[in-house]
Amino acid sequence: MHRVVILGGGFGGLYAAQSLRRASAEVTLIDRRNFHLFQPLLYQVATGSLSPSEVSSPLRAVLRSHKNTRVLLGEAVSLDAAARSLILADGAIPYDTLIVATGARNFYFGHPDWPAVAPGLKSIEDATAMRHKILYAFEAAEREPDPAKRQAWLTFVIVGGGPTGVELAGALAEICRDTLRHDFRSIHPEQSHILLFEGTAHVLPSYAESLSIEAERELVRLGVRPRVNVRAVAIDAEGVTLNTGERVASKTILWAAGVAPSEFGNVLEKTAGAPLNKLGQVLVAPDLTIPGHPEIFVIGDLAYLEQGGHPLPGVAPVAMQQGRFAADTIEARLRRGTPKPFHYHDKGSLAVIGRSSAIAQIGRFKLHGYIAWLLWLFVHLMYIVEFSNRLIIFIRWGIQYVTFSRGARLITGQESEVRSQESE
Amino acid sequence: MHRVVILGGGFGGLYAAQSLRRASAEVTLIDRRNFHLFQPLLYQVATGSLSPSEVSSPLRAVLRSHKNTRVLLGEAVSLDAAARSLILADGAIPYDTLIVATGARNFYFGHPDWPAVAPGLKSIEDATAMRHKILYAFEAAEREPDPAKRQAWLTFVIVGGGPTGVELAGALAEICRDTLRHDFRSIHPEQSHILLFEGTAHVLPSYAESLSIEAERELVRLGVRPRVNVRAVAIDAEGVTLNTGERVASKTILWAAGVAPSEFGNVLEKTAGAPLNKLGQVLVAPDLTIPGHPEIFVIGDLAYLEQGGHPLPGVAPVAMQQGRFAADTIEARLRRGTPKPFHYHDKGSLAVIGRSSAIAQIGRFKLHGYIAWLLWLFVHLMYIVEFSNRLIIFIRWGIQYVTFSRGARLITGQESEVRSQESE
Repeated sequence: MHRVVILGGGFGGLYAAQSLRRASAEVTLIDRRNFHLFQPLLYQVATGSLSPSEVSSPLRAVLRSHKNTRVLLGEAVSLDAAARSLILADGAIPYDTLIVATGARNFYFGHPDWPAVAPGLKSIEDATAMRHKILYAFEAAEREPDPAKRQAWLTFVIVGGGPTGVELAGALAEICRDTLRHDFRSIHPEQSHILLFEGTAHVLPSYAESLSIEAERELVRLGVRPRVNVRAVAIDAEGVTLNTGERVASKTILWAAGVAPSEFGNVLEKTAGAPLNKLGQVLVAPDLTIPGHPEIFVIGDLAYLEQGGHPLPGVAPVAMQQGRFAADTIEARLRRGTPKPFHYHDKGSLAVIGRSSAIAQIGRFKLHGYIAWLLWLFVHLMYIVEFSNRLIIFIRWGIQYVTFSRGARLITGQESEVRSQESE
Repeated sequence: MHRVVILGGGFGGLYAAQSLRRASAEVTLIDRRNFHLFQPLLYQVATGSLSPSEVSSPLRAVLRSHKNTRVLLGEAVSLDAAARSLILADGAIPYDTLIVATGARNFYFGHPDWPAVAPGLKSIEDATAMRHKILYAFEAAEREPDPAKRQAWLTFVIVGGGPTGVELAGALAEICRDTLRHDFRSIHPEQSHILLFEGTAHVLPSYAESLSIEAERELVRLGVRPRVNVRAVAIDAEGVTLNTGERVASKTILWAAGVAPSEFGNVLEKTAGAPLNKLGQVLVAPDLTIPGHPEIFVIGDLAYLEQGGHPLPGVAPVAMQQGRFAADTIEARLRRGTPKPFHYHDKGSLAVIGRSSAIAQIGRFKLHGYIAWLLWLFVHLMYIVEFSNRLIIFIRWGIQYVTFSRGARLITGQESEVRSQESE
């Protein structure tokens, strides 16, 4: 039986596994985590709207009925491309076809001290750490007698004006203005400063300019101060310094400025001669395989492929379609058919800003406001993997829409038992 | 204005704060955490049925509309009883009346190395650590070729046959028999061993013997092996040794054998001369105050009081009634009325074993099986603090009842990215 090994249970890997359900192949899905993470809603965990388990689905539960598929918890450390064997930290897994779908990670442009003070948003632990940081800031401000220090606790800086930065800024504005409005006695959360710094000329630079301008207007209306054409040059626990020389005092800096492809790209370069671009993405052939290794597919955020002169974006639909394509190609080969090259069908892009506010770009069709927001809600609910999570997220969103409350406002984790105001 | 400071936001402290809503007093509730934890359902977090946020309610959200009440995140380290000032790690809070409701913690009978290998169940972090340990055991077993080692991963030992131990054992049995039944390819979770060790002659020793026997019968029916009159004398990462000399190889040992009162009892002894019993509980007067300090109440698990010749049990209803009593006494004093001594109204006890199975003892009335289980469900839903959590728990339970699935099966936390099979 043909052995397919899939490395990574994100959108690419999971959709590949699901599409191989009826293939006459033994499928093994390997991930470091026991769950698939619905990353598009991770910002809602970081801002207390949803719980970690609501945006996660156990891979075993999702693939339970696939009799040809097994799930393994494990971490790949290397590859023996000649012997067709994936080397895990604690063993080796032989394959006939390998699908690498290890995704992306936070990237800090070579600043090793920034991650500790400006958490990014790629994992569940990132999200609960960010939630901790945000909620703790209000608690510390409530107890801080010095006005300047208090203002630093109530100043939130988001570095990066892409979709994640805009989502975080919009959600923070709602937390300050609505959710926490009546919760404190010494501070007024609605007087917090929420600063969004973007390096290019507009937030959401991948969208049409008219939509980006609309998004900036909406952010301002919510109480966010977007600043464009500025970059952070220094970040520490007390604030951020911009390329303009300006210094902003803030105890809460959130990183949404960059991701880099997974480090498994380097393994593929060393062991299978995969060509990488300077970001570290694997330059794949039109059939998503590595040159010289038709048995190794690279899909999702780790793969670099151009279509119509533009690189494919690092978004979930690309990974999902590539996962399905890799599965279809494997099946076609097993039937001795002729696989076609990959073609991405762009169904459009959606970005949410806040309550009743989103932008949508579907081909030449542009949309913003309430209808775009309803579309965003519908699409995200539709793609959530498990029925139970879909139902519970729907209810949580309904409660939040009516009451402005957020159901998952916990300060948890290692340092969550506060020992001193400056313990962070 | 009379200043009431409440230390601890558990059942005792929260109910005291809520009962003081209309008192002409300034109320300050201090807790190390920003949320009230509904401890009776914590075992459902440990066993993947519920999410942490579903059994937690932000204290600020619960007390938002109490205009005379403020919530502070802080940790009390000492007391200046003469100056009537509570000393926090980072400041001091003056009071006219102090209510100490700091509860209980895990207790390992003087074995400092046991907590690391046999986690208890008092906090959210305890619960996610326990969930990690349980779910990881199946993952490790799936990859373990050696049959003896595999059996050690599939052997779950619960030390302590009180309500928490019985709940954990029953839930583990359901995980093995139903939830994970079709999820693995190399192991059969339903062949796991679930051992429940109890030191006295029966599990649930605080119940009538006939109900305890019924509970044991139910546990056996679910697949648990209860063992009575046995104690653990040694626990390490590979298993547990019993007082019979027997050794049980197990990679997953869960601690449900003992709690001790909070260490703030020692502070009260040193600074206010509070008498302690040998467990460390404060021997309170019939009005729940410390002898010589009518302005200091001690309520909940930290307080020791007898009624009808028996000590009051360390359960939520006692803490809730004591919280209300302390509030009423303060209000009576402010109105120059005469407070009555505390009297606990025992409305009965309920313990759940598993799906459709519980026991209930209400006065002389004894009940077991489906009706007792429905009663348990109803009572627990009723006492959940927030409406949104009540609704979501109801839905989660409904989904679980129909599908046997569990919605919160995440392996998260510090060590959750598996690097090697033996990384625990």
